[in-house]
Amino acid sequence: MAAGASERTRGRRPGPTETREQILDCARRLFADKGYDGASLRAIAREAGVDPALVHHFFGTKQGVFIAAMNLPLDPAAVVARLRDVPSRRELGAALAETFLGVWEDPERRIPMLALVRSAMTNEQVATMLRQFIAATLLGPLAERFGIAPIRMEAAAGQLVGVAMLRYVLGLEPIASATAQELVELLAPALQRHFDGD
Amino acid sequence: MAAGASERTRGRRPGPTETREQILDCARRLFADKGYDGASLRAIAREAGVDPALVHHFFGTKQGVFIAAMNLPLDPAAVVARLRDVPSRRELGAALAETFLGVWEDPERRIPMLALVRSAMTNEQVATMLRQFIAATLLGPLAERFGIAPIRMEAAAGQLVGVAMLRYVLGLEPIASATAQELVELLAPALQRHFDGD
Repeated sequence: MAAGASERTRGRRPGPTETREQILDCARRLFADKGYDGASLRAIAREAGVDPALVHHFFGTKQGVFIAAMNLPLDPAAVVARLRDVPSRRELGAALAETFLGVWEDPERRIPMLALVRSAMTNEQVATMLRQFIAATLLGPLAERFGIAPIRMEAAAGQLVGVAMLRYVLGLEPIASATAQELVELLAPALQRHFDGD
Repeated sequence: MAAGASERTRGRRPGPTETREQILDCARRLFADKGYDGASLRAIAREAGVDPALVHHFFGTKQGVFIAAMNLPLDPAAVVARLRDVPSRRELGAALAETFLGVWEDPERRIPMLALVRSAMTNEQVATMLRQFIAATLLGPLAERFGIAPIRMEAAAGQLVGVAMLRYVLGLEPIASATAQELVELLAPALQRHFDGD
């Protein structure tokens, strides 16, 4: 420890915090340039001049790098893991509505989510990153687990995103003042209509 | 004509174009300050220093002033008039999806719509104006005509807005490349689920 501190004091080598931040800077640049799909963990490590094992050590997966780089207030892997456990597709509508509202009702998570949505609305690179990330880590795995056509999964996502815009951004009444439970009851059947198909 | 031109050349009195623009400038300021509900046609006239009859002559109603001031690429009164003619609520889901996509599929209308949505996402005053305008001129009249609870009308609007975000802003596939007809078939049953209720 003392050796590490004195090394930092002499400015010879960056400490773990500086290295971590440097990796995140490079990751943000690469994700912006190449999108989520186009930036590999290996390329991020190369760009930052570190060993891929160190990137893995700090962040686990590329998904973990992205979450840290974008300050994402949720871990899609945890969300998907919880929803995968829903026993049957018949219950997915309510479970998805509850999970989605659980994130958005928490101001500490809503505020960074809104910031990200605003960036995606006005910046083509952010839109590309977010699109690929959502498809790869959230919608794709859920559609596959429950045997739902991708376009139906996206129509359901559209229902949730749109209600979030009307409730949290536009403040349209009465949807802005409804309780989360009222919204789950309102949205679950419409989501389920997409999941069940024709 | 010649007299009007020479009057304008002498700079004595503003011509009709200048007066129209001056009214719209004042209207934009009043709508931003007081919202759509709080700005009357009479107050806009007073702010612009003209007779209310002149505002009526140029724009018809307050709704007409708002459409011109915001460069709105659609007339909600025409949209509502068409949808009012849908014979029964059972057919409203498909008719609403068709009408909504008809506007958004036209690039000349989509681009100003997107600009307005972006403004509303980042500017509280624009959000207030747009919220009140949408409620008063689109969702309110439709909910009343077909006997739909306002919150259900808004959940349906959320479905449409969210899909527009995923298709036109985020470019999420396959929903971004689906045909308008495929989307109508995808969305109509989910909208209908909201309209029919329990």
